[in-house]
Amino acid sequence: MNPTQVQKNTKRSWTTRRDAKRARKEELSRMTTGKVIPAEHMVEALETLIKPGDRVVLEGDNQKQASFLSEALSKVNPEKVKRLHMIMSSISRPEHLDVFERNIAERIDFAFSGPQSLRVAQMIEDENITVGGIHTYIELYGRLFIDLIPNVALVAADQADSRGNLYTGANTEETPTLVEAAGFRDGIVIAQVNEITEELPRVDIPGSWVDYIVEVDKPYQLEPLFTRDPRHISEIQILMAMMAIRGVYEKHHVQSLNHGVGFNTAAIELLLPTFGEELGLKGKICKHWALNPHPTLIPAIESGWIESIHCFGGEVGMEKYIEARPDAFFTGPDGTLRSNRTLSQLAGQYAVDMFVGSTLQMDRDGNSSTVTSGRLAGFGGAPNMGHDPGGRRHATPAWSNMITSDDPLARGRKLVVQMVETFQSGNEPVFVESLNAVQVGKDAKLDTAPVMIYGSDVTHLVTEEGVAYLYKTDSLEERRAAIASIAGVTPIGLERSAKQAEQLRRDGIIAYPEDINIKRTDAKRSLLAAKNVEELVQWSDGLYEPPAKFRSW
Amino acid sequence: MNPTQVQKNTKRSWTTRRDAKRARKEELSRMTTGKVIPAEHMVEALETLIKPGDRVVLEGDNQKQASFLSEALSKVNPEKVKRLHMIMSSISRPEHLDVFERNIAERIDFAFSGPQSLRVAQMIEDENITVGGIHTYIELYGRLFIDLIPNVALVAADQADSRGNLYTGANTEETPTLVEAAGFRDGIVIAQVNEITEELPRVDIPGSWVDYIVEVDKPYQLEPLFTRDPRHISEIQILMAMMAIRGVYEKHHVQSLNHGVGFNTAAIELLLPTFGEELGLKGKICKHWALNPHPTLIPAIESGWIESIHCFGGEVGMEKYIEARPDAFFTGPDGTLRSNRTLSQLAGQYAVDMFVGSTLQMDRDGNSSTVTSGRLAGFGGAPNMGHDPGGRRHATPAWSNMITSDDPLARGRKLVVQMVETFQSGNEPVFVESLNAVQVGKDAKLDTAPVMIYGSDVTHLVTEEGVAYLYKTDSLEERRAAIASIAGVTPIGLERSAKQAEQLRRDGIIAYPEDINIKRTDAKRSLLAAKNVEELVQWSDGLYEPPAKFRSW
Repeated sequence: MNPTQVQKNTKRSWTTRRDAKRARKEELSRMTTGKVIPAEHMVEALETLIKPGDRVVLEGDNQKQASFLSEALSKVNPEKVKRLHMIMSSISRPEHLDVFERNIAERIDFAFSGPQSLRVAQMIEDENITVGGIHTYIELYGRLFIDLIPNVALVAADQADSRGNLYTGANTEETPTLVEAAGFRDGIVIAQVNEITEELPRVDIPGSWVDYIVEVDKPYQLEPLFTRDPRHISEIQILMAMMAIRGVYEKHHVQSLNHGVGFNTAAIELLLPTFGEELGLKGKICKHWALNPHPTLIPAIESGWIESIHCFGGEVGMEKYIEARPDAFFTGPDGTLRSNRTLSQLAGQYAVDMFVGSTLQMDRDGNSSTVTSGRLAGFGGAPNMGHDPGGRRHATPAWSNMITSDDPLARGRKLVVQMVETFQSGNEPVFVESLNAVQVGKDAKLDTAPVMIYGSDVTHLVTEEGVAYLYKTDSLEERRAAIASIAGVTPIGLERSAKQAEQLRRDGIIAYPEDINIKRTDAKRSLLAAKNVEELVQWSDGLYEPPAKFRSW
Repeated sequence: MNPTQVQKNTKRSWTTRRDAKRARKEELSRMTTGKVIPAEHMVEALETLIKPGDRVVLEGDNQKQASFLSEALSKVNPEKVKRLHMIMSSISRPEHLDVFERNIAERIDFAFSGPQSLRVAQMIEDENITVGGIHTYIELYGRLFIDLIPNVALVAADQADSRGNLYTGANTEETPTLVEAAGFRDGIVIAQVNEITEELPRVDIPGSWVDYIVEVDKPYQLEPLFTRDPRHISEIQILMAMMAIRGVYEKHHVQSLNHGVGFNTAAIELLLPTFGEELGLKGKICKHWALNPHPTLIPAIESGWIESIHCFGGEVGMEKYIEARPDAFFTGPDGTLRSNRTLSQLAGQYAVDMFVGSTLQMDRDGNSSTVTSGRLAGFGGAPNMGHDPGGRRHATPAWSNMITSDDPLARGRKLVVQMVETFQSGNEPVFVESLNAVQVGKDAKLDTAPVMIYGSDVTHLVTEEGVAYLYKTDSLEERRAAIASIAGVTPIGLERSAKQAEQLRRDGIIAYPEDINIKRTDAKRSLLAAKNVEELVQWSDGLYEPPAKFRSW
């Protein structure tokens, strides 16, 4: 068989995408001759550049928002622009959902919906929105090159020159990945920028990848999501942090890691220069990080604990501090941070010893979710970093430390640590019979329940009661018993038997504070290297500039 | 506690990396005023820019090689440049190992060493080289941002302008990722280019990321690794391809996938427009690909099977064909392919339904390796794509089709398919008692045995005897029995019991060709849409330009 025998579709055009792009750009040429679209014409421009049924990727991660473009999109005429398939890392702003209520868009694939999680759940129930899938960040980015290739990308940058070169500065985040997916598949790339200038500090995205830029009056929205005020760290959190440092970090020689956001991990960061120093751990643990630039990491950086930090994104107020500490951070020749969510998530998956996270609910098997009744919060980056990557092949001391078998093919594991108090504030138990996620998944007609971290991936659980070394358990029953043993007086914790707990303790599967030489009474706030934001500023030599809402002086 | 109480290391400099870079560049200023280093001065330039103990990332993947720079590095004076820690995706060229024999480098982290696998194993045994770790590609890239941050990156591009902007064209591959790791951490980036011109077709890497360029006489080495001549496809491979299409692709509605390189998958690609067409599968399977631009995919593209292909790298001879088919491929505004190994591996991990690979050895549990006695071949991309990614959260029909439990938290799986004939050419059994990798790993003092794909990740096994649906097995014993049942007269195959095989067949855990309506006698070479390279060229309307070694006319 050969081309003459098999029907070859010789009539078809192979440039339909390119032709469609050219036609749209020609249509727009009445509004602009170059790459610059005047802000006041953006709604009309979107009505010209976007066609019904298009896949539109809108930036949109959990920090930086292309807020001008999302507002403009929400104002287009739904007679002209409709049936859009939106792809967004994060559903963060009201107009992200308004486009569905106004019948501009009908389908969405996303990763996170923290601030809008209640409304998302309601809109699904009301059938105002169709969810394609909920993803971890880089899973969604991957699909941009496979089956969710965008027709249009709407992104945000700090500055552009007239040729479309973009400077994204500290908040490069996911912008290059979104632009690449559209720009190299004959999609249309539109970037809102805070300023057009011919003198860019550096080029983060080449102008030939970008079709249009718009200079906006109001800078793109940027949230300080990773700032935790040490003032709110409790002594229970300090106790858990001490247990984690001794019972996990030190025990397993953890040298590279990611911390999720939260007060538990903030406490750990603030104990390194004090409690960690006393234990003689500097230079032995916590040297390399995949992490947003947490202000609570400043004392550890200043005390010489940290060799390198690669960042998913920036953090409001940390800009000058980072510029003055290039030995610790990735920075450009201009001196400002270079973040990259795609590469940092990749590193956080494959190249670190440990992920430490928290959750709102955990079931008896160790499955956990931040989805609670009526709220569909999505996943963000946790599923990516909070699992044992099956493709990993290199060994580190911590990874190899997880080997529990003498099989010649035995391999190590990534440490996946969950730190939770047994009760949330409001007295809701964290350890529950069944995750609310199961019911929410059913209500939203999701293909699978929205579990954040699966129990089979969790190697360690830390509560105020102790540490469970789940990686040592060799059956589901034993894992359940270990979890119950440190689950306090929650429904799951009440199922434990004292005798079994003692056996697990003797077997080294659970440890109470005293088993790892920690006195509960030592867990004092005075141990924190900084007890409030002002002290973080002092540590930073005044370089950290906290947003107003974190200032109390 | 606060900064006044905790010892703050106030004396330290926070710009040691930046200062070191500046000093090296100043030292080099006697040789060049701008970014251009004359080719004849490169050895001396490397002796100036690289310091003892540096981490040097050398491109280096399995296709494109920075061959001029690796040759130059192998000629430096080992009194001046020594104790280097090399980081290379692929050990491909003799001088990649000469630098160790000449005592310029002492340690290596890598992903693949196909062409040099024998010498690598020997040098480890002779203690001429210390291996840090062997990785899958994106695992190694991840470490470039965590604990293997390079001081120097030596890369290859097609063209540069005098400001250092790089055009990488069809072979962008891993260059942007390597450059980002060094360029944003005060490392030194040196790019060899085939040509310096002020008129770049497009910019793939901004000039501000690049310190130096060198124009070389001989273009960088580029191998046509993904070209398989259909002439060498056997009827057994066609039979296996038919079984795979019916028994796996069609059965599970596989819409997005990756194919490894090999004649088994080439046969599948060439059967889509013939056998697949007869089955009415066009538009139902195999629409979206993460794949190098295999020439054997041309007939399927031309017949309208393929909606999109994202490429790890380019393929020699496919350039003009790709330029003429932008509806199928990712291309830039200049019309040429944009490949990206990092993003395509990411997509291949998280965003496709299926990975199909092959192997040289498989043990009774389904673990497999391409490592054979005395050869340490490394991994490439297979471990990344050939496992079930634990961070995946979205569902597709194929993924959901793998669910075998009614647990409310049950989830789907990635299809990981191994296609092997029971005997290799040379009559070596593929199914063996113990992988050679175990002994090779011991000899090379590796932390873990170099297993390519773990049996627990394999969902399907296809041999000339039949298909084993390993995802349906519910114990290791059952998995072993299923594997043995289609392992022919190999040591493992001879362990099977006919009675057990019949039971597995009734349970749908294995299928023989007749069980999926395939007649062995139908497996004829006449089914191939192209039977030789010349027919591939015909299919391409003469756009595919095969390298000389594949031309027989």
